[in-house]
Amino acid sequence: MAKTRRAAISQAEGQCLFCRILDGHAEAQIVYQDGVALAFLDTRPLFPGHCLLIPKTHYESLLDLPQQLVSNLFTRAQLLAKAVQEAMQAEGSFVAVNNRISQSVPHFHIHVVPRRRGDGLRGFFWPRSSYKSQEEMVEVQQSLSGRMKVLTQDLRDCDCGG
Amino acid sequence: MAKTRRAAISQAEGQCLFCRILDGHAEAQIVYQDGVALAFLDTRPLFPGHCLLIPKTHYESLLDLPQQLVSNLFTRAQLLAKAVQEAMQAEGSFVAVNNRISQSVPHFHIHVVPRRRGDGLRGFFWPRSSYKSQEEMVEVQQSLSGRMKVLTQDLRDCDCGG
Repeated sequence: MAKTRRAAISQAEGQCLFCRILDGHAEAQIVYQDGVALAFLDTRPLFPGHCLLIPKTHYESLLDLPQQLVSNLFTRAQLLAKAVQEAMQAEGSFVAVNNRISQSVPHFHIHVVPRRRGDGLRGFFWPRSSYKSQEEMVEVQQSLSGRMKVLTQDLRDCDCGG
Repeated sequence: MAKTRRAAISQAEGQCLFCRILDGHAEAQIVYQDGVALAFLDTRPLFPGHCLLIPKTHYESLLDLPQQLVSNLFTRAQLLAKAVQEAMQAEGSFVAVNNRISQSVPHFHIHVVPRRRGDGLRGFFWPRSSYKSQEEMVEVQQSLSGRMKVLTQDLRDCDCGG
């Protein structure tokens, strides 16, 4: 709640809450920063140790990031997940991004959350449904593969394997 | 359910379900593949168009991936999120990784899920809690920043800025 309210206030002032954290005008418990990224504690965690990792440049969602920044942020998210598991003595972790829907602050952020067996979050990835028919599934598959064919043309040119 | 059962059978046979998809011994509706990654439809989707993106080499969780593969997979996940939003005419997307806990198949996979306003998934990222005290929050922050200092030493050496 506090976060939502602060975000609303911040945006009313014409500036994103996370940009205000970046420029030192809003407070945060910082756990990591370098030239491109900042990680800090979510003040309303799913569990203690829940962090947010953000780029130092403002982009709204994953879809808006330059490809190099995607690489730089997720290599840092990997290490942050490791740090969260180790520091919080957790058995696992949850790494997630909400793009536009359920995204409380419109500045790209990666959630990194410690997970433990029986932590009560088991049901969060439900309910799952089914495709009505094989035909519906194939239709979705063809639509998606068609888009991917177009979208990955540049990727193939600049990142061959590895 | 079908997936869980198939995974159990596959593992009983001593081989990961996703490796079986990769080697053609289990069926999947493939939406993308290249030298390093494969994306296919989750047969029990949160919503139609829900995809899984996996590396062609078997690694259990995000923590186990070589850094270059993290880059290659998430740059592909970005394009897949874009494809999912466009092809499914969705307003947003959810990109998530379960490491060990809530991870049904122990082969690293990135969920990419289309999202729409009012799609009923709003509550999945709850309940949120609070830190009991400022002291508890600072303690967690220091523990995490200490781990990040150690873990990011190599990252700084091989990826300066950008």
